[in-house]
Amino acid sequence: MGHKVAVMGATGAVGAEFLSILENRNFPMDSLRLLASSRSAGKKITFKGEKLLVEELKHGSFKGIELVLASAGGSVSREFAPSAVKAGAVVVDNTSYFRMFPDVPLVIPEINPLEIKKHKGIIANPNCSTIIMALPLYPLHRAFGVTRVSVCTYQASSGAGARAMQELREETAAVLEGRPYQRTIIPFPYAFNLFLHNSRYNPETGYCEEETKMINETRKIFNEPAFRLTAVCVRVPVLRAHSEALNIEFSREVTPAEAYEALRKAPGVRILEDPPKNRWPMPSDASGQDPVFVGRIRKDRSRENTLDLWCVGDQIRKGAALNAIQIAELL
Amino acid sequence: MGHKVAVMGATGAVGAEFLSILENRNFPMDSLRLLASSRSAGKKITFKGEKLLVEELKHGSFKGIELVLASAGGSVSREFAPSAVKAGAVVVDNTSYFRMFPDVPLVIPEINPLEIKKHKGIIANPNCSTIIMALPLYPLHRAFGVTRVSVCTYQASSGAGARAMQELREETAAVLEGRPYQRTIIPFPYAFNLFLHNSRYNPETGYCEEETKMINETRKIFNEPAFRLTAVCVRVPVLRAHSEALNIEFSREVTPAEAYEALRKAPGVRILEDPPKNRWPMPSDASGQDPVFVGRIRKDRSRENTLDLWCVGDQIRKGAALNAIQIAELL
Repeated sequence: MGHKVAVMGATGAVGAEFLSILENRNFPMDSLRLLASSRSAGKKITFKGEKLLVEELKHGSFKGIELVLASAGGSVSREFAPSAVKAGAVVVDNTSYFRMFPDVPLVIPEINPLEIKKHKGIIANPNCSTIIMALPLYPLHRAFGVTRVSVCTYQASSGAGARAMQELREETAAVLEGRPYQRTIIPFPYAFNLFLHNSRYNPETGYCEEETKMINETRKIFNEPAFRLTAVCVRVPVLRAHSEALNIEFSREVTPAEAYEALRKAPGVRILEDPPKNRWPMPSDASGQDPVFVGRIRKDRSRENTLDLWCVGDQIRKGAALNAIQIAELL
Repeated sequence: MGHKVAVMGATGAVGAEFLSILENRNFPMDSLRLLASSRSAGKKITFKGEKLLVEELKHGSFKGIELVLASAGGSVSREFAPSAVKAGAVVVDNTSYFRMFPDVPLVIPEINPLEIKKHKGIIANPNCSTIIMALPLYPLHRAFGVTRVSVCTYQASSGAGARAMQELREETAAVLEGRPYQRTIIPFPYAFNLFLHNSRYNPETGYCEEETKMINETRKIFNEPAFRLTAVCVRVPVLRAHSEALNIEFSREVTPAEAYEALRKAPGVRILEDPPKNRWPMPSDASGQDPVFVGRIRKDRSRENTLDLWCVGDQIRKGAALNAIQIAELL
C-alpha cells in the first residue's frame, strides 16, 4: 500500500531532485501528482518510465492527496500549503516561509526526528546551508558541548534554483567567448566572480537573511535558543554543492581524533580525505551524493578548545529534497 | 636620472603586471632588462611602445643592474637573488623563499615602510593573501588593539600564476561543451568547483603552507611574534582578485562606525559598499585596481568585542606587483 503524493514546484531544481529521489528510494506511492505554476503546466516529466503531466497548482489541487512535497518558493507555500492541510494532506515544505513558526516542526531526521510527531499539517525543511552545517556540528555538540561556531560558506548557484544554474553556465560561456550577456536571475556578475549572499540585508544587524536563517534555524533544530553562532554567506561560481568552513569552540579541549571518532559513527556524515595527497572534500565529490562530506579537522592555532572543520554537501539533495523525503519516510 | 632595472620572471602573471605598473607609474628608469627561463627567452614584450627582448636568466645577468623585481618562483629566487645582490643590485622578491629570513625585511609600505632601511640586498614582498588581509587589519589593530583574527579566504586562480588562469578558462570551456580536458597545473577539478588551498599540507599542524604564511608573515610585518591569527585558505573558480572574510576580536568594544572611520583614512584601503542595494566588494570590482576594497563591517552576534569585515583585493596587483614596486619607490 502506497501514498497519494503531490510535488509542488515539480519543474524546479529541487522538484526534479524530489522525483529522482522518490524513484531511487522506491518511495511507496499509489499516485503522484506534479504541480507547478501556469507557466510550466502542460509540460511532461518522465517518472519510472511513465510520462506525467505537470498540472497548474490551484487551491483545489490537493483533493485526496496525503503528502505534499513543496518547493515552489515561500510565497507559493504561504498561499497553498494551508489549502493542502485543509484537504487532509501533510505538507513537507522546503521553503523558508513556515520554518520559524512555533507550531511548525523544523526537522533534520538525523538530529531531531521526534519533532515530526508534533506537526499540525506542516513540517518545515531547514535551509540548505543550515542542514549541511548542522549534520556534522550536532554530533560534536552532543559529545563535547559546543560553546560557539563561526562559519563561512561557499555556496553554489543551485541555491538560487535551476534557472540560476543555467544562468551561471550561460554567463560563463559568454565571458569565455567575449560576448555580452544579460543576467535576469542573479543580481551580480557571477562568471568567475563571487559576492556576499544576495538575500535581503538587514541594516539593523548587518546580517543577510541567509545568515540569519543559519543562526535561527540551528537554534530551533538544536532546541537551544541561545546557541552562539555567526555566519558569513558567500555565493561562489560553483554549480552545485555548498562548502562550509566551521570554526568550533568547545567547553573543554577536544582533540581532532576525538572529533573524527564522533563523526565516523554520525548518521548522514562521511569522512572524505586523503591527507598525504592534500585531498579534502570538494563540491565535485558531493554533487548528486547523499552524505555531508567532512574533512581536515584540526586544532585552531589561535585559540584553546577550538577546532576547524571543512564540510561539503549537495545543496539540492541533502540540503533540500533528500532531507524532505527522509522526513516523509519517518511520517 | 633613472635606474637600471631587471624583471625576473617577466613572462608570468606578476611579471606582466610589473611591466604594466612600471609603465603606468612612470617609474624612473634608464634601462629595463627582461629575464625569464630559457623556455621564454627570445620572446618580445612591448614596453612603452618599444619591443624588448626577453633574455635567459643567468648568474651573469645582473651586471650594472641596480634594482631587480623578482617573481619567477621560490627556487629561482633562491638560486639567482644572491648573484644579483653580489652584482650590487637590490632585489625586491615576490616569492616566499626569503620572507621569513630574520635579516630580510618583509614589507607592506603602508604598514612597516621603515623596515626597508634594514635591508642587506633583499627585501621580501609578502604573500598576496597576507597583504590583502593586513591592509585593513593593521589600522584597526593600531587604533583599537586586535586580540585575535580568524580569516577564511576565497582565492582566485591568479594566485597560481598565468598558466593556472588559462587552465581555469580552458577547463571551464571544456565542461560547458561537454568535452574532456586534461589539467596540468591545477591538481583538482577547478571548473565550477573549489578546493582547500593546494599548497603543501603539514600533518603536524593541520595547516597548509598558504595558511601558515598568512599567520607567520602577519606576525613578522606587525612585529608581534605572538599575534593570534588562524586562516582557512580556499581556491575558488574566480580568475583574479582574492576575497577574505575576517572575524576580528578586540580588547574592548569597537563599533562598526569606529572601524569605518579608522579605515576611511587608512592608506591603500577603500570602503566600497551600497548597503541598501546589498552591494559589497566583489572580485570584479578589484580586478586591475590598486586598493583593497572593504565593506560590510558589522558586529559579530555571537561574541562580545568582535567585528566581521569583508575585503577584496587584486591578487596580482596590490597582492604582488604593486606592493613590490611601492617598495622599490621607497628605496
